[in-house]
Amino acid sequence: MTITLQPVKGTRDFYPAEMRLRNWLFDIWRETSRQFGFEEYDACVLESEDLYIRKAGDEITEQLYAFDDKGGRRLALRPEMTPSLARLVLQRKNALSFPLKWFAIPQCFRYERMTRGRKREHYQWNADVVGQAGQTAEVEVLSVLLMSLEKMGLSPEQIRVHLNDRRILNAILEHIGVPEALHLPVMVVMDKRDKISGEALDTQLSELGLEAEQVSRLNDFLRMETLQQIGEALGHAGHAGDAGFSGALGEMRRLMETLEAVGFGGYCQFDITVVRGLSYYTGTVFEIRDAGGKLRAICGGGRYDSLLSAFGGDPVPAIGFGFGDVVILELLAEVGLLPELTPEIDYVVIPFSKDQVPAALTVGQALRRAGFRADADFGFRKLKRALQRAGEIGARKAVLLMPEELERGELVVRDMAAREEKRVAVEAFLASPE
Amino acid sequence: MTITLQPVKGTRDFYPAEMRLRNWLFDIWRETSRQFGFEEYDACVLESEDLYIRKAGDEITEQLYAFDDKGGRRLALRPEMTPSLARLVLQRKNALSFPLKWFAIPQCFRYERMTRGRKREHYQWNADVVGQAGQTAEVEVLSVLLMSLEKMGLSPEQIRVHLNDRRILNAILEHIGVPEALHLPVMVVMDKRDKISGEALDTQLSELGLEAEQVSRLNDFLRMETLQQIGEALGHAGHAGDAGFSGALGEMRRLMETLEAVGFGGYCQFDITVVRGLSYYTGTVFEIRDAGGKLRAICGGGRYDSLLSAFGGDPVPAIGFGFGDVVILELLAEVGLLPELTPEIDYVVIPFSKDQVPAALTVGQALRRAGFRADADFGFRKLKRALQRAGEIGARKAVLLMPEELERGELVVRDMAAREEKRVAVEAFLASPE
Repeated sequence: MTITLQPVKGTRDFYPAEMRLRNWLFDIWRETSRQFGFEEYDACVLESEDLYIRKAGDEITEQLYAFDDKGGRRLALRPEMTPSLARLVLQRKNALSFPLKWFAIPQCFRYERMTRGRKREHYQWNADVVGQAGQTAEVEVLSVLLMSLEKMGLSPEQIRVHLNDRRILNAILEHIGVPEALHLPVMVVMDKRDKISGEALDTQLSELGLEAEQVSRLNDFLRMETLQQIGEALGHAGHAGDAGFSGALGEMRRLMETLEAVGFGGYCQFDITVVRGLSYYTGTVFEIRDAGGKLRAICGGGRYDSLLSAFGGDPVPAIGFGFGDVVILELLAEVGLLPELTPEIDYVVIPFSKDQVPAALTVGQALRRAGFRADADFGFRKLKRALQRAGEIGARKAVLLMPEELERGELVVRDMAAREEKRVAVEAFLASPE
Repeated sequence: MTITLQPVKGTRDFYPAEMRLRNWLFDIWRETSRQFGFEEYDACVLESEDLYIRKAGDEITEQLYAFDDKGGRRLALRPEMTPSLARLVLQRKNALSFPLKWFAIPQCFRYERMTRGRKREHYQWNADVVGQAGQTAEVEVLSVLLMSLEKMGLSPEQIRVHLNDRRILNAILEHIGVPEALHLPVMVVMDKRDKISGEALDTQLSELGLEAEQVSRLNDFLRMETLQQIGEALGHAGHAGDAGFSGALGEMRRLMETLEAVGFGGYCQFDITVVRGLSYYTGTVFEIRDAGGKLRAICGGGRYDSLLSAFGGDPVPAIGFGFGDVVILELLAEVGLLPELTPEIDYVVIPFSKDQVPAALTVGQALRRAGFRADADFGFRKLKRALQRAGEIGARKAVLLMPEELERGELVVRDMAAREEKRVAVEAFLASPE
């Protein structure tokens, strides 16, 4: 029997070098989350398919890896984490102490055509604030995002936060006479702007029932660059705290001011073209993109105050994001910020003949019991080749079991960087390795 | 639309409390692996089904979550990690520097009847040594296992290593006249000894073609307690280095001596009933079980020198184990060794009115930029209730934005454990938080 050695199409293998990079990224995500008081949670990659079935025609639900299990249950590999989060919150709604600030790093699956920065699986950092009304939640999720990106070495020259609000998009659609029932399906189509041509986009909008005139007026709005232009076109000045659209305009201004005040102003811009493809967003939506505009969005998210009630609970204010591990690594590679990560170990113990094996095992285990990282090399190579291998595995020191010295009860401890050796008595070394 | 709030049958949700425990366990697994020089790798949970199809009737391949993707590929959620490891090794055989010492913590899926300690998914620590001939590999994988268990607080009173060798089982089957083609299927059945009754086991062995006399003689062998008894019954003394069975007996003795020498002797015993259900094992097989014998095996593994050649490569010596996250947590709970893990954060910043929000955001972000973990509480509770919540989220200190003090440019910093408060100037605090 011979097997296919490649991973399943669209999925990745992580050899130790790729895994070091993944762990580096995950560690930044985890530690930044914890710095903001987010607690980690998880759910199973396997969920009921009905968790992802939505009326608005979300692209994501067309791309499910779904199947029947041996018991006839209709299951799916999760395409995103938010529905699982909503499920967990509703399951223990009465026992949980709100607001929740939770994060996770789930692997998510989408069966789609593969393009740059898009495979059929990716890991996706999620952080959500659930049950905290008011814009502080927006500020917190954008701050945790930007702080993680700064830890990777990125700055406003390389990345931009594009901010919008679904309530502004709703006001525009209402203004040009699109019936409310069509708002969500229209937004799902609008979100494809980076994947399909402007013409194809217009065609899909027409197919949804928009008049040519409406499509044209919508495109006029999407070309506007400032809040002021849009406010004027719609006849509102915008005041935070107002109901609906006017409030949305005013709150967007205030959000940008607050982000400025906490030191992230340089990254942020209003962008009426940001929609996000998930139909459950209700307010603020955002994307972080490379400043050059060459890659897909690095991350995206928004406010989804109605998702929990759609699943059968009371309305709960909620906001969060998804930040995948593929596009960010492309960007870091492009701007020369990928870290060089090599294996690291404190000691490698090297015997030179088989009768030294018990001694090597004992020395190695004594080092580990003392808290060190210690590998042992049982390749019985010549000294030069053994030291070369010690370098490859990242050893800081090598403990050489040289036949003559070992007979005298001594070990040779070599500092790999300094290329210095010293002889130490075995018992003294085992009693207190350094 | 209402959704099912429960996770899919047999799968688990990890709320923050369960996630802290999972991370505690994974951290021990990761750090112990690294202490021995194992490097982390990973593959996708989705693999081609043909990676798991074996002739010997392994139970595991009857329990696959398998399905066709939208492109007609036959895929499966991995039930175990070793086939993926073999695939990765073969894929880059010429570029990799052997021996490999690799570890992973994959989630694995098996559709089976649920019993205590067995769900339909679990996370499973794997560590493997590939390309290192000789018993040092056995000693390393058993040492890394036992050291991780000692870090959890376990000792020989609570856990036992049960050691066997497939070559000894082969010799017994040969001795009682079982044709070689039946050895693997017979072992797959023998491994069910903990799940089904002795009678049902005998019936399944008969169905495979064993005579009643053979079943009875096999059971006699399985009741023997020492290597010596088995050696005598088969007419061999056993010498390490001999070919086949005699070598296996001698090597088993030497392995136990070496484990004694590195400080793990107290855990180990020979156990002829240990088989392991995977057909690819070729030599040493082992299980770690609770000393009371109440739970399923905590972990199991063995030598699989033929798996890589079965997949189309040259033979490569290899040994490894799988150690699930379910049984171990049951055992730790039973013996009172589950750690009490609570959330921990350095600071919580507490504003008491909405106009203090910008100040709270600024103070929080300054603390984070200084490297601290800082949450903020925007619940605008009364002082007493706010301090209670600060305790719940594990804050070491609370920064209180009291209206009068803030007007004077001061913050109140409260040490939560000592219940002591001091007033500090905002600017001084932001410049160097302590």
